[in-house]
Amino acid sequence: MASTSTQLSLSPSLKQPIHLSSLQNPNFLHPHSLFSHPTNHFPKISSLSTPLRSPICANSSQLMDPFSAKTQPGTPTTVNVDLGDRSYPIYIGSGLLNKPELLQRHVHGKKVLIVTNTTVAPLYLDKVVEALTSGNPNVSVESVILPDGEQYKDMDTLMKVFDKAIESRLDRRCTFVALGGGVIGDMCGFAAAAFLRGVNFIQIPTTVMAQVDSSVGGKTGINHPLGKNLIGAFYQPQCVLIDTDTLNTLPERELASGFAEVIKYGLIRDAEFFEWQEKNMQALMARDPNALAYAIKRSCENKAEVVSLDEREGGIRATLNLGHTFGHAIETSVGYGKWLHGEAVAAGTVMAVDMSYRLGWIDDSIVKRVNDILKQAKLPIVPPEIVTVDMFKSVMAVDKKVADGLLRLILLKGSLGSCVFTGDYDRKALDDTLHAFCKS
Amino acid sequence: MASTSTQLSLSPSLKQPIHLSSLQNPNFLHPHSLFSHPTNHFPKISSLSTPLRSPICANSSQLMDPFSAKTQPGTPTTVNVDLGDRSYPIYIGSGLLNKPELLQRHVHGKKVLIVTNTTVAPLYLDKVVEALTSGNPNVSVESVILPDGEQYKDMDTLMKVFDKAIESRLDRRCTFVALGGGVIGDMCGFAAAAFLRGVNFIQIPTTVMAQVDSSVGGKTGINHPLGKNLIGAFYQPQCVLIDTDTLNTLPERELASGFAEVIKYGLIRDAEFFEWQEKNMQALMARDPNALAYAIKRSCENKAEVVSLDEREGGIRATLNLGHTFGHAIETSVGYGKWLHGEAVAAGTVMAVDMSYRLGWIDDSIVKRVNDILKQAKLPIVPPEIVTVDMFKSVMAVDKKVADGLLRLILLKGSLGSCVFTGDYDRKALDDTLHAFCKS
Repeated sequence: MASTSTQLSLSPSLKQPIHLSSLQNPNFLHPHSLFSHPTNHFPKISSLSTPLRSPICANSSQLMDPFSAKTQPGTPTTVNVDLGDRSYPIYIGSGLLNKPELLQRHVHGKKVLIVTNTTVAPLYLDKVVEALTSGNPNVSVESVILPDGEQYKDMDTLMKVFDKAIESRLDRRCTFVALGGGVIGDMCGFAAAAFLRGVNFIQIPTTVMAQVDSSVGGKTGINHPLGKNLIGAFYQPQCVLIDTDTLNTLPERELASGFAEVIKYGLIRDAEFFEWQEKNMQALMARDPNALAYAIKRSCENKAEVVSLDEREGGIRATLNLGHTFGHAIETSVGYGKWLHGEAVAAGTVMAVDMSYRLGWIDDSIVKRVNDILKQAKLPIVPPEIVTVDMFKSVMAVDKKVADGLLRLILLKGSLGSCVFTGDYDRKALDDTLHAFCKS
Repeated sequence: MASTSTQLSLSPSLKQPIHLSSLQNPNFLHPHSLFSHPTNHFPKISSLSTPLRSPICANSSQLMDPFSAKTQPGTPTTVNVDLGDRSYPIYIGSGLLNKPELLQRHVHGKKVLIVTNTTVAPLYLDKVVEALTSGNPNVSVESVILPDGEQYKDMDTLMKVFDKAIESRLDRRCTFVALGGGVIGDMCGFAAAAFLRGVNFIQIPTTVMAQVDSSVGGKTGINHPLGKNLIGAFYQPQCVLIDTDTLNTLPERELASGFAEVIKYGLIRDAEFFEWQEKNMQALMARDPNALAYAIKRSCENKAEVVSLDEREGGIRATLNLGHTFGHAIETSVGYGKWLHGEAVAAGTVMAVDMSYRLGWIDDSIVKRVNDILKQAKLPIVPPEIVTVDMFKSVMAVDKKVADGLLRLILLKGSLGSCVFTGDYDRKALDDTLHAFCKS
């Protein structure tokens, strides 16, 4: 990948080989993209001028040997999400489900509804019930066990949560607990937002995906047959409790799926974290507890900062969706649940990076590093063959980041760890990326 | 009704005749109700110590001859709902739908979705489309026409709004417009709250019920088979536009239904307004434009004040539900749509007033005046015969005002225009009221 004339082998399905020399020709760019008026350019974290509550100041020695994440079992590391009167803590650590007081201090009222699924319930439901009720006889706990999978993140399944809540006579002073992955967290959170116009809830994420991303920040919702997460609410939990021991039972494919989001944080705003990942991906894949704890903590710190700056996604928060617009199109096109969210995001990230490169906004070394780290994580770097250009375009047209008909995308720009959220890009680059990655 | 030994004929279905003498015996009261610790006692409006933005200072001459509500066609009276950055105006007047600039200044984005029903669409849809697009060619307007009736305020019907919004490729910078009565406003508002996690919306209420109550204050939602409004959101509109001309096409039963809420404002906090209603109910029933405009304006002022003080119903806002807990039980028990909301609230108000009287909290003159004014408005003063005590208890157990298992009610206490929101009352009084009004 040293020579600019080297053919870039991004994907086996690449129809139009890209010659770097042509991409680096400024004439390739639409003039508008050089004067990016409606573009939000977000600096990487080290140059953020806003004072941050939980500054990330890891140096490379910390990065290589993340002692800072080592904790005694049951002693959490805490990351705060700073949102004024909606602020809340994220507790991260081993054995936290054995610490009832941690959970109980965030329970409101005397009734709790645990929302979980058929996979997680046999593993952790009893443990969570025990944590909620131990030494706390006044609390009654109900649970609703949903089918497992993104294909069930729909209105029919959501109604089962409302049915259970109403049958259990839950009132406004109750607490919903989401026990599971991202689908459970999103559905339980939206149910909590809408039940009696809003009740308290707690997130207990049990997948990497949920621990590093979806449980933090208050985005809740369900899918519509025509698109992902089109119905939902911004609604913050009382706390997020991450017991890293729950990852011991996570299937490998789910584990890798979560790393797609970990990699995202590095790419959009935290180059040092990306470098740490490049060196520690094997340890992460081998479930090294310290490596996992560090990756989760640092991911939560990144997410908490972004959410604190922009809770309702007016600007910088959108950057957390790197690769997601392409990824959502993949998930919607192949049918929910066939590809895991992180798998679709991984392929989508490669596509966003490819497009950034076609626009001349990043150099080829970043393209290569993204492909390499995703391969290390055993994640796909191309979309499934059945997804066509038209399918991409059709789903992307209803993406939440469309504004007045203009699709805005998160694209990398500049050195590693910098990105933009913009609708001001050459449409040809998007077309070229789609055609390069699709067979038809 | 002068003598304390007179039998009170509240209802033809009264099984246990109430002798006022026994009710006025303080031994009838549970001791707790005399020392109301968890009771919120809300003074009538004239003694509110909080500075109010739109003070109601009508004197009796204004009340009898409401010139203040007379406006030139197309010139609105404005009532502001003061909620910080979520504040918005309520425009009230004749011919306002002929003033495109009023509506257009609150439209965000280039796409509008009008949510209306099969009854209202033939009457006003074209007019609203014209108001939105006149001199404004950049705006495209879609509409979704739902079946009419409380029985359609459900998840299946709500999904039709999402379907239409997604098919129409609406993005976050769009505006939903609710054109219709309370059901349409509640559903459109909740759809706006949840679509893409929140888009702008405008209320154009076309019934008295919606104009004086449901369109103002941001309560949105749908019913569940087991209870009313159990799923929803607090979500404020950009503005409420009340064209009083739309009442010209309102069926009489709907007209009367709305007056149940007008009467409510008088009872809970505005004795002068209640006195005005007693003198002007015939004019209201005859649709005298000035009387209607005054009743709507004064109702909106009352509602706006209460909502400004307590947006999310932590306390005083709950008082707006006088009669509603009983009323919701009626609606749920007989099946949504069979009784109009205001009809159920009217009977529910009589029951709440009866219970207040049994507790010794109000004197018999108020009981009589409530019965009299509801009769003048041709509203029911007893629940339907098929509703049993057990049906009441079953539905009331899942009321949103239950907290930790305790049902809190809005009850009148003291002179006309004063009420309390409390769970601290003698359970026997509630039982006695239910048995007095139910055949079984």
